[in-house]
Amino acid sequence: MAGSRPIGVFDSGVGGLTVVRALMDRTPGEEIVYFGDTARVPYGTKSAQTVVKYSMQIARFLAKFDVKLIVVACNTASALALEYLADNVSVPVVGVIEPGARAACSLTRTRRVGVIGTPSTVRSGAYQREMKRIDPRVEVTAVACPLFVPIVEAGYGAHPAARLIAEDHLRPILEADVDTLVLGCTHYPLLREVIAGVVGPEVQLVDSAEAAAARVEEVLLEKGLREDGAPRHRFYASDTDSVTVEIAQRFLGEPVRLEPVEIEGY
Amino acid sequence: MAGSRPIGVFDSGVGGLTVVRALMDRTPGEEIVYFGDTARVPYGTKSAQTVVKYSMQIARFLAKFDVKLIVVACNTASALALEYLADNVSVPVVGVIEPGARAACSLTRTRRVGVIGTPSTVRSGAYQREMKRIDPRVEVTAVACPLFVPIVEAGYGAHPAARLIAEDHLRPILEADVDTLVLGCTHYPLLREVIAGVVGPEVQLVDSAEAAAARVEEVLLEKGLREDGAPRHRFYASDTDSVTVEIAQRFLGEPVRLEPVEIEGY
Repeated sequence: MAGSRPIGVFDSGVGGLTVVRALMDRTPGEEIVYFGDTARVPYGTKSAQTVVKYSMQIARFLAKFDVKLIVVACNTASALALEYLADNVSVPVVGVIEPGARAACSLTRTRRVGVIGTPSTVRSGAYQREMKRIDPRVEVTAVACPLFVPIVEAGYGAHPAARLIAEDHLRPILEADVDTLVLGCTHYPLLREVIAGVVGPEVQLVDSAEAAAARVEEVLLEKGLREDGAPRHRFYASDTDSVTVEIAQRFLGEPVRLEPVEIEGY
Repeated sequence: MAGSRPIGVFDSGVGGLTVVRALMDRTPGEEIVYFGDTARVPYGTKSAQTVVKYSMQIARFLAKFDVKLIVVACNTASALALEYLADNVSVPVVGVIEPGARAACSLTRTRRVGVIGTPSTVRSGAYQREMKRIDPRVEVTAVACPLFVPIVEAGYGAHPAARLIAEDHLRPILEADVDTLVLGCTHYPLLREVIAGVVGPEVQLVDSAEAAAARVEEVLLEKGLREDGAPRHRFYASDTDSVTVEIAQRFLGEPVRLEPVEIEGY
């Protein structure tokens, strides 16, 4: 299939590889070009203006590969830069906020929904707004979990301290008595067990990576862009030290070669 | 004093403000221009090449203020970029590695010294090399503590999880039976109590921020550059969201106004 066009996926780091994993499972015939902005990770502590600027640089880089769709596999960038991207690139753009919000709104029965994310994602109010838009009767409790990303990246997901911190971070979620909880950060699927242990089995967890992959498939079908080949995925990153590569493999669930690329000039 | 020249201080983020604090206490008549690269923090996970590039951009920015000395108040940049900076700027450059290493070597009696820092600082081997250079008979145990910076920035220094993580991170330090431990990261003074609680009262802690401030005073005296005015310090950062400002105040120990500045063009 000589004319095949890849899907572009980007994230502030390598966490977005959980979205790539979900895409590889759901649409195995689609080629993927990934870019992780590992030199400038995390976006969660940066201003909206900075995140928009970085996202546009990456979109221009992905355009070089003639991508047919861009997945913003980063909750912070989805919250802060999605609209700007959608207005300024010529291909469909799918974020991780709207699909996760939609899944939560359709799963909840009590209409009390929780969402957890980085401080910046939560402060942006993007999940809260999106869920209110989908169903104005939904009560959303949004909670920032600043230590979850470092815990996952340090490989401390199974350490007793992770449970203690989760109990602290998730206290407002328990108090709000939600029946559905959105994991609003690509890193959080790797803490799924700890989070489930704290909130209990009666709370349904929504993985925003899986929800985004499902939305990508929908859009490709709608636009007649679905392809079925034997794709060779490419993975780029703005920094590719050995620790980053090790973490990347944990997210993707298989070995990965990250090619370094200079993004600032884009 | 119309002709007074400031000291330039920079860090990957706002942690370097612990060095500014130490300078303000030790040399209160010296004017300080601070730059925190908060848009690109942390450096601890970035490659040497990237850290050198960023450090040179910042040195060029500080040169605009006619600084008389540059303090690299960032352990990662001191480990990876100090030599390059010293070769490429026209003013003296003081890092935080050598002063901390020297203090530890003069304090230890058993010649078993520990140093803790970010993964990148420890991997660079800079403290280990520096201490071996000062006293080849010193046995250095260097340990990466990947979760200490996030814990400090999240304000979890007093949480029970901090103690659990410190016990885990510091196990190799206890096993090495050191009598002196270098806090090889500007954030760690804010975890001093937790760290002291784990290693016990018989281990002397060396604060690299205080050691660096002492070294700056020495260099200024040596070069006849010491001044005594009523300085107005200036604080710049590449990103200045409210969380960053809040953390900055914790490090400086007083309110601070961070002015945003675009650094990539330098």
